[in-house]
Amino acid sequence: VTTGSIRSVRIVGTGLVGTSLGLALRAAGVDSQLLDSDPDRLSTAVGRGAGRAVTQGDPPPDVVVVCVPPSLTADLVDEQLRAHPGAIVMDVASVKGPIVADLLSRVGVEDLGRFVPSHPMSGREVSGPEGALADLFRDRVWVLTPTEHTAAMSVETAEELLGLVGAVSRTVSPAQHDDAVAVVSHVPQLVSSALAAALADTSDQALDLAGPGLRDTTRIAGSDAGLWVDVVRANAPAVRQGLAAVRANLDRLEEVLATGDDPGPAVRDLLVRGAAGRSRIPGRHGGDDPQYAGVVVQLLDAPGQLAGLFAAVGMADVNVLDVRMEHALGRPTGLIELLVSADQSLALGTALRDAGFDVRS
Amino acid sequence: VTTGSIRSVRIVGTGLVGTSLGLALRAAGVDSQLLDSDPDRLSTAVGRGAGRAVTQGDPPPDVVVVCVPPSLTADLVDEQLRAHPGAIVMDVASVKGPIVADLLSRVGVEDLGRFVPSHPMSGREVSGPEGALADLFRDRVWVLTPTEHTAAMSVETAEELLGLVGAVSRTVSPAQHDDAVAVVSHVPQLVSSALAAALADTSDQALDLAGPGLRDTTRIAGSDAGLWVDVVRANAPAVRQGLAAVRANLDRLEEVLATGDDPGPAVRDLLVRGAAGRSRIPGRHGGDDPQYAGVVVQLLDAPGQLAGLFAAVGMADVNVLDVRMEHALGRPTGLIELLVSADQSLALGTALRDAGFDVRS
Repeated sequence: VTTGSIRSVRIVGTGLVGTSLGLALRAAGVDSQLLDSDPDRLSTAVGRGAGRAVTQGDPPPDVVVVCVPPSLTADLVDEQLRAHPGAIVMDVASVKGPIVADLLSRVGVEDLGRFVPSHPMSGREVSGPEGALADLFRDRVWVLTPTEHTAAMSVETAEELLGLVGAVSRTVSPAQHDDAVAVVSHVPQLVSSALAAALADTSDQALDLAGPGLRDTTRIAGSDAGLWVDVVRANAPAVRQGLAAVRANLDRLEEVLATGDDPGPAVRDLLVRGAAGRSRIPGRHGGDDPQYAGVVVQLLDAPGQLAGLFAAVGMADVNVLDVRMEHALGRPTGLIELLVSADQSLALGTALRDAGFDVRS
Repeated sequence: VTTGSIRSVRIVGTGLVGTSLGLALRAAGVDSQLLDSDPDRLSTAVGRGAGRAVTQGDPPPDVVVVCVPPSLTADLVDEQLRAHPGAIVMDVASVKGPIVADLLSRVGVEDLGRFVPSHPMSGREVSGPEGALADLFRDRVWVLTPTEHTAAMSVETAEELLGLVGAVSRTVSPAQHDDAVAVVSHVPQLVSSALAAALADTSDQALDLAGPGLRDTTRIAGSDAGLWVDVVRANAPAVRQGLAAVRANLDRLEEVLATGDDPGPAVRDLLVRGAAGRSRIPGRHGGDDPQYAGVVVQLLDAPGQLAGLFAAVGMADVNVLDVRMEHALGRPTGLIELLVSADQSLALGTALRDAGFDVRS
């Protein structure tokens, strides 16, 4: 198998990820062979155009992607490595360590060269082939976590597959992956849920005072519990370590609050370290970067308001880098913030005022 | 003082809040008398049109609003209650209990009838008269926290003032206010900072995998430390209680993770309770409400892209309720989600596809 050589891919498991992968590969002109133990799910995936059901006379696939729940993944990867000695085999489980360890213990070194563990970071709130999207992976990170036995050529083929579906490739070790997703995904989820769970006893009157800060910090608390049960189970040690780090950051402040001493220094330290950590997250950060400035506009909650605003922005010929909308409590109006280069913000504000908009800053 | 009777307001302290209040009152045709111990700050506020400097021959004000830092608030409220026996006196400190307790202990009951403690919930990241905005309070909650001595007529006058500047009035007791802001504002801030501070030791590689969940939960971690030192100091008991509630929500999970038992039930419980708490926050919640549906569009990062999109949305004649933008990692493109009524989402998707946009869901 060499670069440019993926002609056919066998997808084992036609849930959300498998069916989306089939749709993306079909769109890229690649033969997609689908396999699922559930005939209904398989026919839904075929019906959606994700590929054709595997038949006896099929040519051997160049790549097999095992897209089944984590608990079934190792068995099916093992089976597929044996069944297709010429193919590379990938999985898509969201935690890598346990599955990789399991397979290292039972698959021969010669077959492990063809195994490329991976994790496409592009979930949806829905599941099943019905929710599949041809562009689920496009512009999303898809992490490859080769083991010490994975052949370089296998990684290249996996990268070729990622390119076919428009994903952004990142390569780290399985352990690095699991530690990373604990910190950037699993721990924030659990902390957000803990913050939101504390609202159970809060009065309606108090919640009425909630602003965008509480909304942002608890947004992901609406996530599906079932998914997270499996993830935390599989990544328990890294999650434990990540939660301990967050807890340690609150410890000093809580100790000071318990003694009644001045909490000022502990608060300052926590906020300063938090701002430093925040600034390390790649991507655009709204007001954090002095290069950018926000222009805030008050909108009426009516059809066409946003359209008119953005048309006016378009005529001002500035590049809007980000947009945030905030709704005024109990009022049918909203505030919208447009993030632009600092040197374009005055011009944009003037243009929007001239177009009749209520510009606040 | 009766409803409809506010002719002149004296503003003590011309920082961000005082100057914004002056601008808003002037816009509403009310006489605004400004006072500040710092002549430069005062002349800046006057120069911005927030009112005129107080002179000896001034008519007595109907309302005095003390807009100074928390540590100076009680002294100045006391002074103003004595100086203007016909006026109601308000303050704007962000924590109410300590200031109210201080004043209850030193002001006579007859004067306390005219004191209306309050908290306009509309800060900005900037301070000083330079950052003042005439519409800082518009459509924002301004909490009134009358004491047991505050006269009903004084509250009515305060509500009239709030109406003049477009604020949304809410009335709770000082203690209820402090407990509420601890839960909906102070604790989320500290938890967000603790989460972000834990990123200090995270590798760049790991942070490269960060998605919108981490960005949302740590957005407010960029806040100014100085402001929060004062707030937590003043509201230490309620903050302590709020942090303990969040911590208790994580305790069971952390215990299970420490023992190595199955964390599944603890994770499920935490997530389910978190989702329930999240759903109690008033306002629009993106994907949380089945009444609404998101339409996701892939944009190029170029001038006019958003303008074209929203113009197309405008022609589709649907009411966009919310808008979120997410940037793809390492690519000059972005995803934008438009929240609309569930029954309009299909029509919007079709209209945008017809207009040449890359609609993902």
